[in-house]
This record gives sequence, C-alpha cells and structure tokens, in this order.
Amino acid sequence: MKSIKELLRAKRDGHPLSAEEIEYFVTQTVSNEASPAQVAAFLMASCTRGLTMEETTALTLSMARSGEQLPRAAFERCRIDKHSTGGVGDKVSLLLAPLAVACGLDVPMISGRGLGHTGGTLDKLESVDGLTTDLSMQAMTDLLEAHHLFMAGQTPTLVPADRIMYALRDVTGTVENVGLITASILSKKIAEGLDGLVMDLKVGSAAFLPTLQQAEQLAVSMRQVCNSIGLPVTFVFTRMDRPLGKAVGNWVEMVEAEAALAGLVQRDLAEVTTELVARMIMLSDTSIGYEAARAAVIERWKSGQAHIIFHEMLTRQGGNWHRSMQRYATLPRLEILASDSGYVDEISARELANILSSAGAGRSREDDLIDPAVGVVIHQPPGTPVQRGQPLATVHASSDNAALKLRNELSGLIKTTTAPEVREPSMILQVW
Amino acid sequence: MKSIKELLRAKRDGHPLSAEEIEYFVTQTVSNEASPAQVAAFLMASCTRGLTMEETTALTLSMARSGEQLPRAAFERCRIDKHSTGGVGDKVSLLLAPLAVACGLDVPMISGRGLGHTGGTLDKLESVDGLTTDLSMQAMTDLLEAHHLFMAGQTPTLVPADRIMYALRDVTGTVENVGLITASILSKKIAEGLDGLVMDLKVGSAAFLPTLQQAEQLAVSMRQVCNSIGLPVTFVFTRMDRPLGKAVGNWVEMVEAEAALAGLVQRDLAEVTTELVARMIMLSDTSIGYEAARAAVIERWKSGQAHIIFHEMLTRQGGNWHRSMQRYATLPRLEILASDSGYVDEISARELANILSSAGAGRSREDDLIDPAVGVVIHQPPGTPVQRGQPLATVHASSDNAALKLRNELSGLIKTTTAPEVREPSMILQVW
Repeated sequence: MKSIKELLRAKRDGHPLSAEEIEYFVTQTVSNEASPAQVAAFLMASCTRGLTMEETTALTLSMARSGEQLPRAAFERCRIDKHSTGGVGDKVSLLLAPLAVACGLDVPMISGRGLGHTGGTLDKLESVDGLTTDLSMQAMTDLLEAHHLFMAGQTPTLVPADRIMYALRDVTGTVENVGLITASILSKKIAEGLDGLVMDLKVGSAAFLPTLQQAEQLAVSMRQVCNSIGLPVTFVFTRMDRPLGKAVGNWVEMVEAEAALAGLVQRDLAEVTTELVARMIMLSDTSIGYEAARAAVIERWKSGQAHIIFHEMLTRQGGNWHRSMQRYATLPRLEILASDSGYVDEISARELANILSSAGAGRSREDDLIDPAVGVVIHQPPGTPVQRGQPLATVHASSDNAALKLRNELSGLIKTTTAPEVREPSMILQVW
Repeated sequence: MKSIKELLRAKRDGHPLSAEEIEYFVTQTVSNEASPAQVAAFLMASCTRGLTMEETTALTLSMARSGEQLPRAAFERCRIDKHSTGGVGDKVSLLLAPLAVACGLDVPMISGRGLGHTGGTLDKLESVDGLTTDLSMQAMTDLLEAHHLFMAGQTPTLVPADRIMYALRDVTGTVENVGLITASILSKKIAEGLDGLVMDLKVGSAAFLPTLQQAEQLAVSMRQVCNSIGLPVTFVFTRMDRPLGKAVGNWVEMVEAEAALAGLVQRDLAEVTTELVARMIMLSDTSIGYEAARAAVIERWKSGQAHIIFHEMLTRQGGNWHRSMQRYATLPRLEILASDSGYVDEISARELANILSSAGAGRSREDDLIDPAVGVVIHQPPGTPVQRGQPLATVHASSDNAALKLRNELSGLIKTTTAPEVREPSMILQVW
C-alpha cells in the first residue's frame, strides 16, 4: 500500500486512486493519522483533477463505513428519506416527514445546520423551546422503532469522515465538486440504512448549484453511486429563485410548517411537498402509481394525521410548542407596506436570505449563533394584485431597533411592480 | 480583498492570483490566520493548476519579506552565496565557502538539513564535536561582519512562511513544483541580502530533478524571478549519477572536505568546486574573466588560505576538530574488497544513499535522528583498474554489528566489472 504522501502525489498527477487506496485514506483520516493538511490537499486535488465514478463510489462507501450506522434488522416498515440541496424558505422536511410517516414509512431524518444563505432544518427545529436534535444513536434507533420518526443532527460517531471533510471543505474552497458532494450526501444516507432516497435538487438563482445542468451532473453522479450499491433513488428538480412558501427565518418557518400541516398552505410549498412524499411512497412500493401515491399524501394531509404526528414528534424531542408561541408573540414585528398599487414583484431569494442571515437568521461561519426570532413573512406570492398601503410582508426580530433596521433593509427588496412577470406555474421542473 | 476561502476557490478554478492576493495569503499564513489545511489546499492547487511567472515572483518576494532579513548596510564586500539542489556526497559548500571568502567575498551560508536521499550541510557540520549551526540573526550578522562567513541553519524568524510551507509540502505530496521550489529557494536567498547567487543544478539519476529538462525548467523560472528583482544569478548544471568525491555520510564527508582543502582532492569534487567559486567571483566583479577567476580560486586553494579559513570557521562556531578526529578514530570500520580483478564499476548514488540513510546517515522524516559516524569512503573512482582482494571502499559505523550489516548491504553495490563504461569526463554539463 502506498503512503498517504504517495497517494497525494498520485492524485496530484491525475492518477485515479483504487478503492483500497481510498478506503485506506478515509481510515487514516478518521484515526487522525492523516493530518488536516493532508486531507485538505486530497480535497483540493479531487476538485482540480476530478474524481472518477469509481473513486466517487469508493469514497462514498468508505465514508459511510467510517463510523456507526443505524441498525437495519427488526424494522418492518420501509425506510425512506429525503435530502434537499438547500433552498431559501425550504421548510419541506418539517411537513414531509410527518406526512411520510402518516403514509406508512419510517423516516430517519438526520439533518444539517444552515451554512451560507440557506437555512438548516435543525436550526428551525431548535427555535422551539426545549427541543433537542442532539440524539444518540440509541435514542435515534429507539424513536424510529417506536414512532417511525426522528429529526436529529449528525452525531460524532455517524460518518465521522464526512464531519472532518465537510469542515475542511468549507474553509479550503473545495465545496463545489460533484464527486465530493455526492460522497458527502450519500455516505450519510447510506449510514441511515435506507431502502430508498428522494433527492430534491434545487435549480435557480438561489440554489447551491444554480443551473439545471449542474443539478443534472450531480444527479448523474449520485444515480451511478446509488445504482452500484443497489439503493433506489428518485431525483426531483424544483425551482429555487423566489423563497419557497411565505416565511423565511427559523421560528417563522416552524409556524408556517405547522399552519401548512393544519391546512393553511401556499400553493408552491404544497406542490413540492406532495410531489416529494409521493415519490417516497412510490420508492417504498413499486406497485403504487403516481396518482394513487399523490392521493394518499393529500388524504393524510387533509385528515390531520400528519399534523398530529408533527406535534407528537416535537413533544417527544422535548419541544414545548405553546410556550414558544407565547414567548415569540411578545417580540416586535413590523409591516412592510406597498408604496404603490400594482402587483407583488418577484423577490430574489438569495438577496433576501443574505440580508436575513446578516440580521442573525443564518450563519456565515460554523460557530456563529442564530437568532431564531429573526425572519420575514411575505403575505402574497409574486404577481398578486395589491393596493397602495396594503401590507406586503411582516418583519420579525428580537428588538425594536433590529426590527426597524431589518425592515429598512428589506423594503427595497419586497415591493410592487406595474408589470408582473408571468412565471411558469409549476415548481417541479423534471423528475428522474 | 477576497477572503482566504475565496482566494482558494479562485486558484482551484485556474484563475491566477494577484501580487496583493499572494501577499495577503502569505501574511495570513505566517500569522496563523490561514490554517495548515488552507495552506495545504493552496499548495495542492498550485501544483495542479500551476503558478504563473508573476505568481511565482510575488510568492518569492512575499515569503522573503515574511520575517527578519540579514542587514545589508555597513558591509563592504560583495555578498555572494551558492545553492545546490542536492546531491549524494555533495560536500561542495564546505570547500566553497572558505575558498570564496579567501577570494574576497562575504558568504552568508544558511543551509538545510538532509531529507530524503541527499545529505544536508548542517548535518555534516554538526558531526564535529561542539559545533553549533543554531545562530541568532545577531550572531550571523556579527560573524559576517567580522569574518565574512558563517554556516547556519534557518532561524524561526528568517522566512517563516517557507518553514511553514516546506513542512506542509513534504507531507502533502506538493514538493515537485517548479514555482514552489523557486519561491522556497529564492525567498531564503533574498532574505540573506545577496549581491549575487550561483545555483548548482544537479542532473542525473540521483538528483532531486533527474532530467536536464527539469533542471532547465527550474533555471528558467528562477532566472525570471531573479531578473525581476535585479538579483544576478548564474546556473551551473552538474552531473549527479555517481557520488561526488570519495565519501558519503556526515563525518566522513567533513574529513574529505578538510583533506580536499589541504590539497588531497578527487578530480570531480575539485572541478565542481572550482567552477562554482569562479562563477561567484565573476558575479561579484563583472570585469574579471573566467580564466582569471579560476586562477584566483586555484591560487587560494594551493596557498592553504581556504584551509585555514575552514578551521577558523569551525572553531568560531564551537567545533573541536581534533577531539572529533580522536573520537571517530575509535569507531569500527570495515573494508569492502574486490572479489574479482577488473575495473571499479559505476556506483548508483541513489541506491547508495538510500542504504546509508536507512543505516542512520540520513532521515526519512524530519524528526529522525542522524548517526554522524555512519558512512562510506570509496577509494577509487569508477573505471579505475583494481586487483582481486584490493580494498574498494571502507564502511564506517558506530558499532561492529552495524558495520557488518552495512558492509553486507553495500557489497552488492560497490564492485568490479570487466568492461568499464566510458564516461563523459566533465562534471559540468552547461552554464547559464
């Protein structure tokens, strides 16, 4: 076997590494025999030289095996998860998981925190008073067995190779590489012991990979790795230019998710959520057709079963919904009013997210603290006719000064237009 | 100014960095604001994307400015140094520095330790009892002012950027890059405040860059950087296939250097040393012709002036030559005898060095300890006719067992042949 240094020289010179060499590198990474500098050099060489499909598959499997995995035996229901490449206002997981459980699936949802301009499901959940997402492998296993559902953060023992590499990728400018992204996402999903995976690939100006071509490249890479290990996967390509739904922030998105499960849901959010849950059901039972799967989702949604499961999950993980409602209700909120009559203009999700992130709703560094109260609720979707003086949005913050500052910054972004752009109605671009 | 992360992404995508961006990166490296992982990512991207000439120049200058520099004012003599890309048995610096001082130059020689298959001048010097090469900037300045000469190791304050990068390059497989090699060598030489530099570029199977083409690439890169900062430089390309001179090791090379200055010198070592010192003299005074410069070197060599300067330098730096001679004389040595009559065969310098390094004469890791007693003296150059039973070489070691083991390992390498290969006589391949 070559030494770490020799493997790096080979990769530097454009020679692909064998599966055994990648397994050795990942093992050495987790045991700290390979230094952070050596891992960083590997990541940069992987970006500039590229990873072959065989290398990507080997890296994914070696990473998945680098720590503990959720046990698979003694579980009767199909275990299906969803992963999104991250959007603004993307609270889909919060609706989808209870809906999928209501439809008979097991959903072991291990999520990430927000970094950059997109929010993280964990941060949204933790805006609920008392709620913890810091679950041990045993707690995850127990919750999944008893209740078919948990929503948790990555543990130190789950895919430790990804934790090490992900932190280094962020600081070394090696995030944007299809092979590394594939391995990072799929290694964590494989460690969940899934029977199937639905990928929500965001496409548009506010997406991590903005163009359809980039998203398709990732799908091709992920498909090949999934095929080689026999993991069924469906790719749903969805729009990400404007915020998804009405709310962007942490607590405000929890409130929107709760209201949506109770029946008050904006069309775009309902469309994406229904599509993704239907695809999860179809992966769990290939004899179910698309329309039947959609009908099952809508039925469980309307019946309130998913709404009940949502609240039960929050309570099981320590959350107190009513105390949170009462506490956040005392915090300042300010309206953004239409300065002219016309139509609600398009809202750049990326600019909106950057402003909210600076105001405390997001992180630019991993150790930044989140202000869960910071957010905005946009009352009508773009294209809706509005009168001068009518509220366009409500700004939420922790202090009057912060609310005034945020309203000031957002008022240039949330406005009316005399000529509304006619947009494609569907949020779903394509399904692979 | 872009952040470190943004600079890494730009370099990753093949965009050259500006001089200001490189200066910022080097400053952040020295202040530890850029982590080892980020520096490693930069080094790997520099290898795979390459460094432009402008980037190499900027990196060299930023690194040279990253710490203290030897003061330039109040020194009257021309300050000229020599640097070699490293050879087996290469004790040229030990002869060259006293010769150059005898010829009227100031020689501030800051050297490295051996790593890999080539020995380091510092390790050879430190085989002398009591001798220290660990000099402060003030001690170096004082020695240079009073005696025109010192031989020292890199201090923590001299080119700290190179110390950080060099250690990382070794472990991340990013040593073999012309731009990084150029910046590493020249930044240290610029910090010496030189008026001129002679580069000994080794070419051959035992060289760091084995082919003439590789050595020429490095010369082109170094020439451009030197031109852009106005530092006169001469490149001498010399052979490195067989060991240079008779001795390979640490103390045995000191003994050969001393004997050579006293007049007992093998032709190849004399040829390389005379050429390099002559080129140093020509850089110091462009009115002196090649033959006059060579004549000056030979005159100072024959007169014994350089021999006296050599001993004075050792004594000033704490070394006790006679005590060392007495001590090493008690250690075991064994002969390798010719098993057949014939001619001394070619000796692979690389294989010889690897065997000696494993026996303790060299390092495979920076923190390996050296055994200064380990070495070999080859009595006749390849092609010399020898009789069966005549000694071909003497093996030196610290214990009888070690000497027996080493003789066993070397006896396959140092042997006779019936058909001697006719070799080009000159050690000097070309001068640029």
